Amino acid sequence: MFPSANAPIGIFDSGIGGLTVVKAVMEKLPNENLVYYGDTARVPYGIKSITTVREYALQITDFLLSQNVKAVLIACNTVSAAANEEVRARCGDIPVLDVVDAGTQAALEIEAKSSSIGVIGTLATINSQTYERAIHAFDERKRVFSKACPMLVPLAEEGWISNEISRLTVNEYLQDFRDKDLDALILGCTHYPLFKPEIEDYLKESGTKVIDSALSIATKTEALLAERGILNPDEQTGSFTCYVSDKPQRFQILAERFLGKKLNRIEISPLL
Amino acid sequence: MFPSANAPIGIFDSGIGGLTVVKAVMEKLPNENLVYYGDTARVPYGIKSITTVREYALQITDFLLSQNVKAVLIACNTVSAAANEEVRARCGDIPVLDVVDAGTQAALEIEAKSSSIGVIGTLATINSQTYERAIHAFDERKRVFSKACPMLVPLAEEGWISNEISRLTVNEYLQDFRDKDLDALILGCTHYPLFKPEIEDYLKESGTKVIDSALSIATKTEALLAERGILNPDEQTGSFTCYVSDKPQRFQILAERFLGKKLNRIEISPLL
Repeated sequence: MFPSANAPIGIFDSGIGGLTVVKAVMEKLPNENLVYYGDTARVPYGIKSITTVREYALQITDFLLSQNVKAVLIACNTVSAAANEEVRARCGDIPVLDVVDAGTQAALEIEAKSSSIGVIGTLATINSQTYERAIHAFDERKRVFSKACPMLVPLAEEGWISNEISRLTVNEYLQDFRDKDLDALILGCTHYPLFKPEIEDYLKESGTKVIDSALSIATKTEALLAERGILNPDEQTGSFTCYVSDKPQRFQILAERFLGKKLNRIEISPLL
Repeated sequence: MFPSANAPIGIFDSGIGGLTVVKAVMEKLPNENLVYYGDTARVPYGIKSITTVREYALQITDFLLSQNVKAVLIACNTVSAAANEEVRARCGDIPVLDVVDAGTQAALEIEAKSSSIGVIGTLATINSQTYERAIHAFDERKRVFSKACPMLVPLAEEGWISNEISRLTVNEYLQDFRDKDLDALILGCTHYPLFKPEIEDYLKESGTKVIDSALSIATKTEALLAERGILNPDEQTGSFTCYVSDKPQRFQILAERFLGKKLNRIEISPLL
């Protein structure tokens, strides 16, 4: 039996980054109940084999299904690339959305001036060419320029979000795009929305639209739930339950920074 | 039978950082033969359990012993803290040196003005209080001030060693030590010797001596080999063999940066 309309939406990531997706969904759909799983014991996924990432992703999917979720959001670029189909197969009738697809769709909706799209992400995401493939599956004439920005994840986790160091780092990475006249720049890592103001500031004269895949997936989730008639009819603010496989030091501080609000309780639920 | 004096010295780390130890040993003992093992498939160790780190460290120790090494250098702070005794037990008569002990000894040899010692390292190393314990085991009156500097490893791996971003980052981290009048500051991570010029520059007015544990362990190695009469009598430049458990993209570039010279060949030898 399909879960009821007030069942929670399940959201997962290899760690903490997916909380930017939680934040976007909370803002877009404030009365939905949300269950998050962050695999903090086994992060980062980007350096693991595809087989291992698939196995982990399916373990988390099973956990979320056991929570009777009505939809699953893959809030992790590595899982979106490596295990998208496997997660969808496991979920059956439960709809699945992922950040790569959401970010790609949003970028393709931008009116073309140069037909060039930029992508920034971790080394693993950029080397995997996930976004190139996703974009070319829809429109093979688009030119895609990618750039790995490995300093942005540690900067976000250090809390250096809008200081001189983060500004210089963003500028250093984005200067390669300066002469590319991009239609859109996809933030291809769930940590990167934290740097969106600085990225937009750097690009402000260029006419390039910054695609925050956390916002994109939240928008797609609203449309999907509305289309299927399963938006939560309850009028109060939805609940939020945060599960992690391990609770590292500073997790609470970091989680609240990513989520943009206080987190009352974090449940530890290892999957191994 | 104990290996002969022209047998190699084995050096290992969870990844690439230990190559700063290789560099220091090459400079101090140019005609020694060296075998390095970097566990690049399973890096980083700092987020793994002590049991797992011990198991991995013993696997690498067995590998080095199978190469008939005459000494083992633990060029990894996490392994030094978690598996030092286990590695020594496994090595039997083969002497073992580690970076934590070498750095601590060198810091304790500095003439005291304030009896305060600073330590910088990864979050894992600083949270483990390894250096505090090691220092206090010799002199419990020393005051130890520690600071995790999580941005320095990604900065080193991005190759941002002496630009404006690395200078600002070093200054940001070291400002906590400004009023501490430290006798010595231990670089408690094998990546950090790459930032030694900037760290020394920041501390130049303070009279604080920077302890590079890569240099310290090289000095101790020379003394130990001399004492045991097993310095390599061969007069030509020693050989260097670099083994890794996986060869990530950009490894060669990074390895050459850490080593400060060209690397002709890297052998891949997974232990799993």
